Amino acid sequence: MTTRVPVVEKILSANDRIAEENHARIESAGVFSINIMAAPGAGKTSLIEQTLPRLKGKLRVAVVDGDIATSIDADRAAKAGAQAAIQINTGGDCHLDAIMLRSALEQLDLTQFDLLIVENVGNLVCPASFKLGTHKSVLVASIPEGDDKPYKYPGMYRGVDALVINKIDLLPYIPFKMDYFERGVQVLNPGVLTFPLSCRTGEGLDVWIEWLTQHATHKK
Amino acid sequence: MTTRVPVVEKILSANDRIAEENHARIESAGVFSINIMAAPGAGKTSLIEQTLPRLKGKLRVAVVDGDIATSIDADRAAKAGAQAAIQINTGGDCHLDAIMLRSALEQLDLTQFDLLIVENVGNLVCPASFKLGTHKSVLVASIPEGDDKPYKYPGMYRGVDALVINKIDLLPYIPFKMDYFERGVQVLNPGVLTFPLSCRTGEGLDVWIEWLTQHATHKK
Repeated sequence: MTTRVPVVEKILSANDRIAEENHARIESAGVFSINIMAAPGAGKTSLIEQTLPRLKGKLRVAVVDGDIATSIDADRAAKAGAQAAIQINTGGDCHLDAIMLRSALEQLDLTQFDLLIVENVGNLVCPASFKLGTHKSVLVASIPEGDDKPYKYPGMYRGVDALVINKIDLLPYIPFKMDYFERGVQVLNPGVLTFPLSCRTGEGLDVWIEWLTQHATHKK
Repeated sequence: MTTRVPVVEKILSANDRIAEENHARIESAGVFSINIMAAPGAGKTSLIEQTLPRLKGKLRVAVVDGDIATSIDADRAAKAGAQAAIQINTGGDCHLDAIMLRSALEQLDLTQFDLLIVENVGNLVCPASFKLGTHKSVLVASIPEGDDKPYKYPGMYRGVDALVINKIDLLPYIPFKMDYFERGVQVLNPGVLTFPLSCRTGEGLDVWIEWLTQHATHKK
């Protein structure tokens, strides 16, 4: 196992350097950018689908979608009103890295946008280790995943700037102790911004939209 | 990126060798063994919790639980009636590998068991690449994850011997096209055994229990 560590460290530090370059590029274009991470099926794409129509006429949005295969997510983002939607297929890799995002950014004139949404590969572990260069990282948790996830995936919960708790419409049908969940979150990431919402019913989305809008207009 | 490939290949082939050793050890003890994989929150631990009491007095079960942190899962397995429950904390790694399972097997007298259940780390990508040496690999999908998961995580769906579709009690509350889901599954893994069930209501569990029991008693 010891032979493996230096390689991983080298990859990570190379990644961090390119993430800094991505950040500088995004920042100089005056775009607010987020990296959305989550377990498979928590609702990253649904959140983007619900977000885009609500920003119509207010913010110009580019979406970069990471997936192992298919362009389902980018197609959904384009249909929902993204001014640009780029799909990155990682070819088996379980996360996006800064090099992949750089390739996507090279296809965009960033000055034409106010908000860049990067949707990471569905995975609660690996994406946490790879900075992309976005301003904020957002974790989408969801009620059906269960209330023990902060305890079991601490790396992800510790590192994010905002936490969306999706599918709150399912709370009546699922045993989920919100106290227990929130206690886990607070230990790992005290005071982290939290957005409980439902992409299905629309409940709670207004606060999330307000947060995005404030950050994106502040950049201009 | 090119420097990375040979290292990964070497790790994988070393892993496969140890997986074969694990398999020989399990096989010679006459134990039926499964490797349960799933996205975080699909219900791996709930499935084990619901399975154990139903096997009481019929099969002696050992559970090996893989997690990044905590011993929540092994504690739940022990409480639910596992004759032995061993927790592997991967220390950040996003999957179990054959070396980790070997360490766990060294702590068990396998001849004392009929069934070995290995619960992998919650992840729909990486565990698919690491054989452990078990007889069957089982994927737990769940309704709230959405019907597009076979298309988006083909590697995992392609490689498994059985597919549990959990949380069918939530079908009335969630838009989930079973046809679309099953079409994706059939393309990747034609004829794969499928167990639609609900760990919450118990619906469908009898067929799953029957499958486990038949395989485990056949080994004796």
